[in-house]
Amino acid sequence: MRMRKKPWANGELSSNKNVVKNANELKGKWNEFFGNDNPIFLEIGCGKGSFLNKNKVKYPHINFIGIEQFEPILASAARQSREQGNEIALFCGYAENLLDYFAEGEVSRIFLNFSDPWPRKKWGKRRLTHKNFLDKYKIVLKPYGEIFFKTDNRDLFEFSINQLADENFKLANISLDLHKTPYQAENIMTEYEEKFSSQGLPIYRCEAKKQN
Amino acid sequence: MRMRKKPWANGELSSNKNVVKNANELKGKWNEFFGNDNPIFLEIGCGKGSFLNKNKVKYPHINFIGIEQFEPILASAARQSREQGNEIALFCGYAENLLDYFAEGEVSRIFLNFSDPWPRKKWGKRRLTHKNFLDKYKIVLKPYGEIFFKTDNRDLFEFSINQLADENFKLANISLDLHKTPYQAENIMTEYEEKFSSQGLPIYRCEAKKQN
Repeated sequence: MRMRKKPWANGELSSNKNVVKNANELKGKWNEFFGNDNPIFLEIGCGKGSFLNKNKVKYPHINFIGIEQFEPILASAARQSREQGNEIALFCGYAENLLDYFAEGEVSRIFLNFSDPWPRKKWGKRRLTHKNFLDKYKIVLKPYGEIFFKTDNRDLFEFSINQLADENFKLANISLDLHKTPYQAENIMTEYEEKFSSQGLPIYRCEAKKQN
Repeated sequence: MRMRKKPWANGELSSNKNVVKNANELKGKWNEFFGNDNPIFLEIGCGKGSFLNKNKVKYPHINFIGIEQFEPILASAARQSREQGNEIALFCGYAENLLDYFAEGEVSRIFLNFSDPWPRKKWGKRRLTHKNFLDKYKIVLKPYGEIFFKTDNRDLFEFSINQLADENFKLANISLDLHKTPYQAENIMTEYEEKFSSQGLPIYRCEAKKQN
């Protein structure tokens, strides 16, 4: 991905109270960080943060955390959260290091929104719904914790629901054209989703519940 | 459905050894009927029988049974099986009466191919993957017995995988475009499927395993 230079990005990242510099040190202590016992919902690949910020407004009693691998993009999410006065946590990190950031059963829900489809077969292990990642999600999710997944990419969706079912997640609310289902009424859109759905492309979505 | 008159149909149905007149009386005794202990695979809505007949050629050590509600169509399936020399069982019946025909755990696999989508919401209970039907399938299926489902109708597929997951079937080998997947190599097509796929329409498919 080619990113525009953002002269303000470093300043935002260093001064914004929502930006966490030492996520590893908060492993097992996120509820202390938030100062409450509310459930923790995590978005892996939070992009510019619209989804998390809209969620925080709608569900103030949830602790939202966003991980993003690209710092300049994380800076946009941080700025948006500051401008809207939302207390969320954001940090620069990688899905493969999830067990460094979170303790067993610390997370109630994981959102995967429009993850990179990595379309070539040899890239399968890089997809965020590959079973190697699901194994990590299972560890950080509490019993009956959930993954909420959506994508515009049919092949990634097919791959993902198979991986989830194979790994004994219980699927629910599967949608092959989200914007035509009743769930749409409570759907919160991401930046990508607004773009894709305005082009009339179907959005695929499912929920997957850990079984113990 | 409007059906052409088939002057030969009654003769075929009354004389064909594959046609079962008294399916109720064979409940719990299908292996006696076949004279072996091979697994029983059942197609509900077998149409003109191409799928079952091709399966029987490929898998001779399976006992195949087809149910069809329309007698003139069943007659075509019967004629095809006789002409090809396949020993299968065919009878005229209804999915809602399944428990009259089969004992608990008597069936190893149920095929549902291109079932009527019953598109209007108020018709949901008529769809062969409605949970009321799944409850009956669960009874006649043996532990870890399977449902193999395929359709060209996206809405029916979405409805069906949700019903199956809700009813604790374990989904596997989900395909959103069957004819582009490796499974296609072993796929046996139905009459409908040949028509739809020749038009370039995607075929949806999944397997669903009973969990005990």
